[in-house]
Amino acid sequence: MDEFDIETVAEPDLHAPILIEGLPGVGHVGKLAAEHLLEEFETTLLCRLYSEHFPPQVTIEDGITELACLEFHKVDLSTPTDSEESPSDQDPSHDLIVLTGDHQAQDPSGHYQLTDTILDVSEEYGVERVFTLGGVPTGELIEEYSVIGAASSEALVEELSDLIEFRENEPAGGIVGVSGLLLGLGGRRGLQAACLMGETSGYLVDPKSARAVLETLETILDFEVGYDSLEERAEEMEEVVTKIREMEQGAAPTDDDLRYIG
Amino acid sequence: MDEFDIETVAEPDLHAPILIEGLPGVGHVGKLAAEHLLEEFETTLLCRLYSEHFPPQVTIEDGITELACLEFHKVDLSTPTDSEESPSDQDPSHDLIVLTGDHQAQDPSGHYQLTDTILDVSEEYGVERVFTLGGVPTGELIEEYSVIGAASSEALVEELSDLIEFRENEPAGGIVGVSGLLLGLGGRRGLQAACLMGETSGYLVDPKSARAVLETLETILDFEVGYDSLEERAEEMEEVVTKIREMEQGAAPTDDDLRYIG
Amino acid sequence: MDEFDIETVAEPDLHAPILIEGLPGVGHVGKLAAEHLLEEFETTLLCRLYSEHFPPQVTIEDGITELACLEFHKVDLSTPTDSEESPSDQDPSHDLIVLTGDHQAQDPSGHYQLTDTILDVSEEYGVERVFTLGGVPTGELIEEYSVIGAASSEALVEELSDLIEFRENEPAGGIVGVSGLLLGLGGRRGLQAACLMGETSGYLVDPKSARAVLETLETILDFEVGYDSLEERAEEMEEVVTKIREMEQGAAPTDDDLRYIG
Amino acid sequence: MDEFDIETVAEPDLHAPILIEGLPGVGHVGKLAAEHLLEEFETTLLCRLYSEHFPPQVTIEDGITELACLEFHKVDLSTPTDSEESPSDQDPSHDLIVLTGDHQAQDPSGHYQLTDTILDVSEEYGVERVFTLGGVPTGELIEEYSVIGAASSEALVEELSDLIEFRENEPAGGIVGVSGLLLGLGGRRGLQAACLMGETSGYLVDPKSARAVLETLETILDFEVGYDSLEERAEEMEEVVTKIREMEQGAAPTDDDLRYIG
Repeated sequence: MDEFDIETVAEPDLHAPILIEGLPGVGHVGKLAAEHLLEEFETTLLCRLYSEHFPPQVTIEDGITELACLEFHKVDLSTPTDSEESPSDQDPSHDLIVLTGDHQAQDPSGHYQLTDTILDVSEEYGVERVFTLGGVPTGELIEEYSVIGAASSEALVEELSDLIEFRENEPAGGIVGVSGLLLGLGGRRGLQAACLMGETSGYLVDPKSARAVLETLETILDFEVGYDSLEERAEEMEEVVTKIREMEQGAAPTDDDLRYIG
Repeated sequence: MDEFDIETVAEPDLHAPILIEGLPGVGHVGKLAAEHLLEEFETTLLCRLYSEHFPPQVTIEDGITELACLEFHKVDLSTPTDSEESPSDQDPSHDLIVLTGDHQAQDPSGHYQLTDTILDVSEEYGVERVFTLGGVPTGELIEEYSVIGAASSEALVEELSDLIEFRENEPAGGIVGVSGLLLGLGGRRGLQAACLMGETSGYLVDPKSARAVLETLETILDFEVGYDSLEERAEEMEEVVTKIREMEQGAAPTDDDLRYIG
Repeated sequence: MDEFDIETVAEPDLHAPILIEGLPGVGHVGKLAAEHLLEEFETTLLCRLYSEHFPPQVTIEDGITELACLEFHKVDLSTPTDSEESPSDQDPSHDLIVLTGDHQAQDPSGHYQLTDTILDVSEEYGVERVFTLGGVPTGELIEEYSVIGAASSEALVEELSDLIEFRENEPAGGIVGVSGLLLGLGGRRGLQAACLMGETSGYLVDPKSARAVLETLETILDFEVGYDSLEERAEEMEEVVTKIREMEQGAAPTDDDLRYIG
Repeated sequence: MDEFDIETVAEPDLHAPILIEGLPGVGHVGKLAAEHLLEEFETTLLCRLYSEHFPPQVTIEDGITELACLEFHKVDLSTPTDSEESPSDQDPSHDLIVLTGDHQAQDPSGHYQLTDTILDVSEEYGVERVFTLGGVPTGELIEEYSVIGAASSEALVEELSDLIEFRENEPAGGIVGVSGLLLGLGGRRGLQAACLMGETSGYLVDPKSARAVLETLETILDFEVGYDSLEERAEEMEEVVTKIREMEQGAAPTDDDLRYIG
């Protein structure tokens, strides 16, 4: 295996595709959001990206092993699987290429090389615009779910300023990992890249923050998606949050509660 | 020395060889199992694999140094050294190439490169099928020694489903290191690869788990092997386990007891 | 992106340029000193240096992302921005190329490669002489701010011995990172390189030490610079030092106090 | 600078040179022994070896910086500087090439590459035989200073068995670092390589162990060397050991005492 290995699975037509990145990060916000898109629309697996920069491991499903990888999926916004949205109500101008996976690179310089490879693959598919999805930790449990933005150029900030909130000098620590490098390296290649970050405590896997981020993406890309399955997860999380507040006054956590601790 | 260096020692004929991997891991289950095969049959050292990915050290035996390496051994199943098994009772259809060693790669991307090299060497020998042996930790001392499996393809899971137990979504954490990557990378090369994992506490070097794994392998590959030497080690381990249970009620460990702590 | 990537921004004339390095280090002494030069004179950004050896992140300013990088700036000593210095009072014989940034390499061999690249860029600009700026930790709060030196050759030590204090066998631990390697590798390329190290506690970001280093540089390179903005920061630091002494007798730190903790 | 960089300093004639390696390790035994040889005989610096695998730093002496490196010195055994040994009493059949330095490689695979480079340089000089010097930790203060050996081949063990003590399966943990790899990699190149390990507590820089190792080397290579300067250091160490024993009964260490703690 080379340093990076692309395994092409299918080659359907792609119409003005936009890359949506949702790899693991703070609160798994981007990951939950990206995986929700895969559940709500018809998808086609385009390719898998293997790399020696991923952990040296296989996962197992039904006894069959799968080598650590990222997956690029075509998401056709005109074909929602949720019956509440009938196809004729949507006439999206872009396909989405949604990038999912369980890992980022395991070594620092590996992040640069991985991001470069993701951009190479994306440009081959004709991608010119990228949205990376993630969480920004507040350090405490929150009630309101704001989404803040960052973008690779001044022109893009202006274009999106009515749709996303750009806060001066936030996030203070910048953006670490693929979500940030896709803007840094993508911008240097002339792509238009923006990052949508949902506020989240940082302590929990956060479906509510994922929903807030998707609602912002809906506005930007002019599509609609249902939230029933994410809502169930959000209700479970609410129960955990309630328990946490109770624990802060003395009660002990159950196994179910622990399932949400990032 | 290059990144990997193969030192050919002997080049005997090999009949439909199957690779059996037994490198160090949880409970040293795979290692004990592989080394037991080397004791119970006639073997020929095929080659040594050196690498800058191994610890930078030499071991010493009788004053002579040996550079860290892995060893590929031909094991002829028709020639057991244990007199209980007479050659004419066995008519194995495969030679085994047993891979042993004291180290895995010391850096994460090194595991990928090491596994690729092991597969290159194996394919040169005509290997088409691989069994990796290891342990799966239960986190507690156990009485029953189950063996669970994973395989590189659905077809192989079906072929082996009467001989190995495949549990849904176990091991939950997947398989880390060469034992897993041989399935992930081997599968992508079109090899048939399966992993046999013996349950073990994870706290002890476990000869009983190694025996359970070998008994499963015997069934799959239709050969027989004696267990006297492994049994001695198993009895010593039983004494340690008894002592551990006593210690949990207050008594102190002796040096002998400490010899089995992984 | 390659291992190192230079992005040329402007190509003005350069007159006998001298490289001044001020990357992060002990007490941020070099960084503060270099950034102060950028504030006090007219500058032109020459180029940015990107590398996979930097942290995999982007910083954000006004919503726009910037990939981690170092910056080379032309500083024209004949054009101070501070009105106290009139251009005609200065007739500097050298332009300065001031190197700033927020990061050093994240891996040990990366420091060597990064320094080599910095020297390649500098030699392309015609640099023959280098001054690296940094701090040397004393381990305790100090009243007097001495500056000690090191140089890449005996001839350079002699040339500078009236202008900088060279102490026998200090710093005892040598100089770690780019500030030291620019002398080690620069010297081997035939460049004249010296390091100016301001004594500092090592616990605080230290504007007073930065000033002491700049005053030494002024003497060596025969130029003048104002210190008003550095002085403000120095006064804030004095207040923090006072508080630290008070805390050592019991009082608690405020948020403002914590801003100066390195 | 490349991954390794050799700077030739002088090219005197070399007569049947033997490499003696004395890099930092347990108790600095090898380092002290090698540096003692440099003090007791006329030497010529042959070359310096620089590498990005060394710490990214420069040391300072008299204000002049020196990049981290290893040094190869020709030691002419017929020209002792100690007047007790007159040149005509010695008629050594070999020059020594003594390798000294302050660092080993900072990353694990770097040790392999560094050792390969050391062997390349040595073979260029016509070296066919290597002695690596080091310490083997006992874990406690000792009275008797034994020296044990290891060698790269059975033939060499036999040749040296009257001159060095080879203990069965000691050291149990093998030999880590350049001292071991010179035997492992050197042996694979057909060189004759042996390691002399002086027993030492492992807690102190140990001149007595260094002396024991040199006395063994004297016997093997048939030369003589004085020990006055090493003896002074040994007496200082005795005082520290006495103090340690006192401290174990309650007294506090002085600064001088701390100088000998490894």
